[in-house]
Amino acid sequence: MRVSGQPTRPIRAAPERDAVWVIDQRALPHRLVVERLADVAAVRRAIADMWVRGAPLIGATAAYGMALQAGVDASDAAIVQTAAHLQSARPTAVNLAWAVQRMLRKLLPMPQDERQAAAWDEADALAEEDVAVNQAIGRHGLALITAIAARRPGPVQVLTHCNAGWLATVDWGTATSPVYQAHAAGVPLHVWVDETRPRNQGAGLTAWELGHEGVVHTVVADNAGGHLMQRGQVDLVLVGCDRVTARGDVCNKIGTYLKALAAFDNRVPFYVAMPTSTLDLTLADGLAEIPIEERSAREVTHLAGRLADGRVAEVQITPDGSAAANPAFDVTPARLVSGLITEHGIVDADETALRALMLGRR
Amino acid sequence: MRVSGQPTRPIRAAPERDAVWVIDQRALPHRLVVERLADVAAVRRAIADMWVRGAPLIGATAAYGMALQAGVDASDAAIVQTAAHLQSARPTAVNLAWAVQRMLRKLLPMPQDERQAAAWDEADALAEEDVAVNQAIGRHGLALITAIAARRPGPVQVLTHCNAGWLATVDWGTATSPVYQAHAAGVPLHVWVDETRPRNQGAGLTAWELGHEGVVHTVVADNAGGHLMQRGQVDLVLVGCDRVTARGDVCNKIGTYLKALAAFDNRVPFYVAMPTSTLDLTLADGLAEIPIEERSAREVTHLAGRLADGRVAEVQITPDGSAAANPAFDVTPARLVSGLITEHGIVDADETALRALMLGRR
Repeated sequence: MRVSGQPTRPIRAAPERDAVWVIDQRALPHRLVVERLADVAAVRRAIADMWVRGAPLIGATAAYGMALQAGVDASDAAIVQTAAHLQSARPTAVNLAWAVQRMLRKLLPMPQDERQAAAWDEADALAEEDVAVNQAIGRHGLALITAIAARRPGPVQVLTHCNAGWLATVDWGTATSPVYQAHAAGVPLHVWVDETRPRNQGAGLTAWELGHEGVVHTVVADNAGGHLMQRGQVDLVLVGCDRVTARGDVCNKIGTYLKALAAFDNRVPFYVAMPTSTLDLTLADGLAEIPIEERSAREVTHLAGRLADGRVAEVQITPDGSAAANPAFDVTPARLVSGLITEHGIVDADETALRALMLGRR
Repeated sequence: MRVSGQPTRPIRAAPERDAVWVIDQRALPHRLVVERLADVAAVRRAIADMWVRGAPLIGATAAYGMALQAGVDASDAAIVQTAAHLQSARPTAVNLAWAVQRMLRKLLPMPQDERQAAAWDEADALAEEDVAVNQAIGRHGLALITAIAARRPGPVQVLTHCNAGWLATVDWGTATSPVYQAHAAGVPLHVWVDETRPRNQGAGLTAWELGHEGVVHTVVADNAGGHLMQRGQVDLVLVGCDRVTARGDVCNKIGTYLKALAAFDNRVPFYVAMPTSTLDLTLADGLAEIPIEERSAREVTHLAGRLADGRVAEVQITPDGSAAANPAFDVTPARLVSGLITEHGIVDADETALRALMLGRR
C-alpha cells in the first residue's frame, strides 16, 4: 500500500539476496525507519523485539531468515537449528512455525549446494503468496461491506482492533484488505480504530496506514467499543488472528475477546480475517491449548510518544513500585465468531466447516 | 487513607472557611499537588478540568463551591445561578446535581445572613456523611470478600476499573472500601487494576492509592480483563458508578460494560459499589436516558507521564491528522450486575429492590 503516495511494503528482499529490509515498526507513527537485516540473529531480534509483528509478516520474515542461514551454512544440522531458533522468537502466532516448517520441507530434500538459491526463491514465493492471499481475503470481505452499504445510506462503520493491516503482512493486510478494497471501489466507510494497549498498534500503526490510504477513521480507547456498539455505531467488527483452532476458536491480540462479547451482545457481525496459514488443525480448544505470550511489564508501565518538540520519548504512567502484567493475546471462543474470512471464501467458525475447507484445498 | 503513612483526604475545608484545599489529581501518580480553591470559578474549573473527579468527590467539591458563593453573595438569585453553573460542569454523574440541590434545599428557606455559616456546616456534613457511607459500603462489601476467602486458600483476586478509590470520594472510596477493610482485617487479597484509558485513573490513581496502603496489586491494560477471567484469575469484579437508574442500569467509566460482559460470560460476580446518592430514580433505561459526556479528543491522542529525568511531559501517540473520539462513560445493563453494594446493604440491580430500599430509608 502507500506511504505519502509511494507504494511501500513492510519487508523486501535485497536484490543481491544478502539481506532483507524491514520497516522498524516501533518508530511508527512518528518516524519511518527502514532497517537492513543481514543475518539470522538480526532477523530473530527483529521478530522477538517486534520491529516486525503481525502473524503473516512474522512468517515471511522468518522465511527470509532461513534463506540468510542457507547462505552461511546450508547443512541439515544448521538449518534445522536455525528453524528452531527462529520459531522460538514468538510463541503464539502459528504462521511463524508454519513458514519455518515450509522452508525446511523445501530445503531438506535438496542437495546442499542448491539450498541457498532455493531458499530465496521459496521465501519470495511465500511473500508473494501472502499478497495474493490477502487480496483474496479482501475480495471476500468486500462483499460483507457492500451488502451493508446496500442496506442503508451513510458510511459503513467498521471497528477493528490491533493492526491486521498491511504492516502486519507483506501487503494489503488481512482485516484491512476488505476495507482498502471497499475504499478503492468507492464504498463510503469509516473505521473505528481501537488504540490497542499496551503497544498501541491501533493508534500507532492502523491509524497511520489508514491515513496514508485516505480512509476516514477515528481512534478510540479500547474501552469505547462496547459503548459504540450499544449506540448502533458499528456495523461490522473486522479483526485479524494469530492462531485459529480446528473448532474455530480465535487467538488474537489481547482485548479481542471483549469486543467479540460486545458484538454478540449487540448483534453486530464479528468477522475474523484468516489466511489459512493461521489455522492450526492440531488444536481444538483454544483456551486450553494455545500458549499465550506474556510480554514485559514495561510495555504496560511505560509508553513512547512524540513530545511537543518533535522528539520521541518514553514516559512512565504508573507509580514506582506498582507491578504490571502483560498477556499479549486472548482467545475468542468460536461461538462468538460470525465467520472467518479466508482466501478461499468465508467459512463458519466450526470444525466441520474448517476441516472441509482444508480437505477441499489439498 | 494514607499517603506515605500520613492520613490524607483529597479535599478539606480551610479552617477559616474561605477556601477548600484539593489534591490536583492530574499530577498523580508522579507528584502530589495540593491546590487552594477560593471561589466558585476555581471550584468549577477544578471539577470540569478534573483536578477532582469521581462522583462522590465531585458532589462534595460542588457543595463547598456553594458555601464559597454564600460568603460572597447569598441572595436567592446568586445561589440558584451558582447551583446551575456548578451543575453544568460535568453532565453524567448524578452526585453533582444531588449535592448542589441538597445545598439549595438547605439554604433557600433560611434568612440570607445565616446562609454562609449554614452552607459551610452543610458542606462539612455532606463530606462527613460521604465518609460514613463509604465505610458502610466497605463493611457490606467485606462480607463478599471474606466469603470468597473462606472457600479456598490463596489471595482473593479482585478486578477493578477506573478509580472508585478514596481519591474519588472524601475518604475510603466506594469500590476500594471493601478492599481496604479486607486488607485491614488481614484477608489476603490481590487487586487487578485496569489502566483505564484514556485518562489512566487506574494506572495513575488506583495503583498509587493501593501502593500507599500496602495492598498487593498489578496494573493491566484494559484489554486484559476478559483473558484473566477466562483463566479463573478473577474472583470478583468491584467497580464504582456515576449514576444508577431505577431499574439498576449502571453508568460508569467507559469500558465498564466490557468487563461486565466478560464477568457474566465467565460466571465471575460483578458488583457495583453505589452510595444511594448515586441512584437516580427519575430514570429507568440507562442506555436511552443517561447523558454520556464526550470529552476532548486530546485525552485519547495525548498522554502525560514521567520522563527518565523525572520531569512530567505529554506525548502524542497517534499520527497527525487522525481523528479521535472520547466517550467518557458507558452503561452496563442491570442484567449483567450481580448486585449493588450500598451503605444500607447489598441490593439487587432491579427496580423493585431499589424502590423498596429507598422507601425504607425515607
